[in-house]
Amino acid sequence: MLSSSGGRSHTPSTVGELGEFGLIRELTARLTTTSAVRVGPGDDAAVVSAPDRRVVASTDVLVEGRHFRRDWSTAYDVGRKAAAQNMADIAAMGAVPTALLLGLVVPAELAVNWPSELMDGIRDEARVAAAAVVGGDVVRGDTITVAITALGDMRNQEPVTRSGARPGDAVAVTGWLGWSAAGHTVLSRGFRSPRAFVEAHRRPEPPYHAGPAAAALGATAMTDVSDGLVADLGHIAECSKVRIDVRSAELDVPAQMYDIGQAVGVDPLQWVLTGGEDHAIVATFPAEQKLPARWRTIGEVLAPSALPHVTVDGAPWDKAGGWNHFRD
Amino acid sequence: MLSSSGGRSHTPSTVGELGEFGLIRELTARLTTTSAVRVGPGDDAAVVSAPDRRVVASTDVLVEGRHFRRDWSTAYDVGRKAAAQNMADIAAMGAVPTALLLGLVVPAELAVNWPSELMDGIRDEARVAAAAVVGGDVVRGDTITVAITALGDMRNQEPVTRSGARPGDAVAVTGWLGWSAAGHTVLSRGFRSPRAFVEAHRRPEPPYHAGPAAAALGATAMTDVSDGLVADLGHIAECSKVRIDVRSAELDVPAQMYDIGQAVGVDPLQWVLTGGEDHAIVATFPAEQKLPARWRTIGEVLAPSALPHVTVDGAPWDKAGGWNHFRD
Repeated sequence: MLSSSGGRSHTPSTVGELGEFGLIRELTARLTTTSAVRVGPGDDAAVVSAPDRRVVASTDVLVEGRHFRRDWSTAYDVGRKAAAQNMADIAAMGAVPTALLLGLVVPAELAVNWPSELMDGIRDEARVAAAAVVGGDVVRGDTITVAITALGDMRNQEPVTRSGARPGDAVAVTGWLGWSAAGHTVLSRGFRSPRAFVEAHRRPEPPYHAGPAAAALGATAMTDVSDGLVADLGHIAECSKVRIDVRSAELDVPAQMYDIGQAVGVDPLQWVLTGGEDHAIVATFPAEQKLPARWRTIGEVLAPSALPHVTVDGAPWDKAGGWNHFRD
Repeated sequence: MLSSSGGRSHTPSTVGELGEFGLIRELTARLTTTSAVRVGPGDDAAVVSAPDRRVVASTDVLVEGRHFRRDWSTAYDVGRKAAAQNMADIAAMGAVPTALLLGLVVPAELAVNWPSELMDGIRDEARVAAAAVVGGDVVRGDTITVAITALGDMRNQEPVTRSGARPGDAVAVTGWLGWSAAGHTVLSRGFRSPRAFVEAHRRPEPPYHAGPAAAALGATAMTDVSDGLVADLGHIAECSKVRIDVRSAELDVPAQMYDIGQAVGVDPLQWVLTGGEDHAIVATFPAEQKLPARWRTIGEVLAPSALPHVTVDGAPWDKAGGWNHFRD
């Protein structure tokens, strides 16, 4: 088993042929490390530096057919996306991602290159954020399932939760909004272009650096946009007991998005307001805080009222908002 | 949805009826916290104290039908076991468990009480080790899948890996060996007793405290027994480039285990040497180190030879050893 997993010429074709330990070796051999990794994969547990004396941790689970499709995304893209959505959660606390752990369920008949390319994707996305994969578990099951846990370090800043927004704060966003949703619509209609949106759906690019930067600028509340802007601002508004009003004229709806919206009969504002999975970072700031160039002020925090937690141009946004994975 | 999940009288009967956010509320409401938890469930990520400036982390995945059966184990027991096997990995590095994250896949038609009782089990096992559940993710899928990540703190000790065993060291174990395997045999033959073994299979009791204690006593290598004693000592021997010889006469094979072995036609030594899932802690120590009462010296570390990594009474152990989850 050792020689067959080590040599490229006789690599077994399925994970069942390779076996549990062979697959673990195959995946582990693809990893790179960082100076934060004290004990990496291959022992009972990993040991990772936590210089702040606090560790930030988040877990996300992706199930084939529900969160990704093998005919829409390569294994590599699924890995990039799974790692990205987890590290976006770390960044949205104001922390810097340091390490990832992978819990993977694979059918025995799956070709080995699928988990191998998945691992390459996870590794490469981790490297974007200067983090490393430090451990995990691989088991057999009928449905491909990817459970990732991300760890991060606060670097002596205070965590920015969802509950600190105050009336008068400005609401600002950085990163992409609606691109993944537009790509999802395109793919679900059987198209593979425009590439920009399809690529955004397959491989989001969260602005990891923006989380710690926002914390340093005094963000009062923060989250990443995973369920859709209205839904995720709703979480902030609910936790902070405020109302948030979004000014739609401030949202960036690129011309390309109008074009594709017209082609498929969708108001592109719908994608921007309710599309998740781009993992933009949205935060509230004291109104007087000047923000860096890539932040866009899109609304303000108001006192709670009889209106919904989130309004758009002062009125309820009545179209479907956010994802409820059990119902949709 | 809020009122139906909050009030006990109209609790929805399935997770699909309750919905994603309702289920998360239901599960989160069952949790308790500790002073190590700075930010608990409900935000983008949790924040947990890491006083040592290093965090220990391990992920394990359990899939229904492969790692547990709903007709053999209650949801509560599955939760206890899933948490236990993860925290045993933390203890086996010499660390103290601090926090758990849960990635859970559940079918929409599953009764809500199943994940609720699972969460109770995870919470209660965490409390045994003074740890807390701090976050996670719940998604829908066809097969119940439980992915747990455990975090721990080294408390200023050095991690004890699998690679430090030296010829001349003593091999010692604490905890239970073979009880879970005996219980598995009993259950797979359609029996529900003897209770002691069945309970050991359903709910292992890893000696969490023994891991940090062994580190303090100068353990040179350590692991928990999850794959079976011979297999797990094999990991130490391989990583440490040594041979390990187990003296079978030193192993504790209780009279009850002989009785049930006779009844089902199994040599009980087979359970003790190859049965996993009790999560005993096995470690190597300098030969002169006196060990506390509950440790049992069961063999010694030798220079590598032409023999297998692990021998029993000086000879290869030729019966099936350990689990290979992809093949069994």
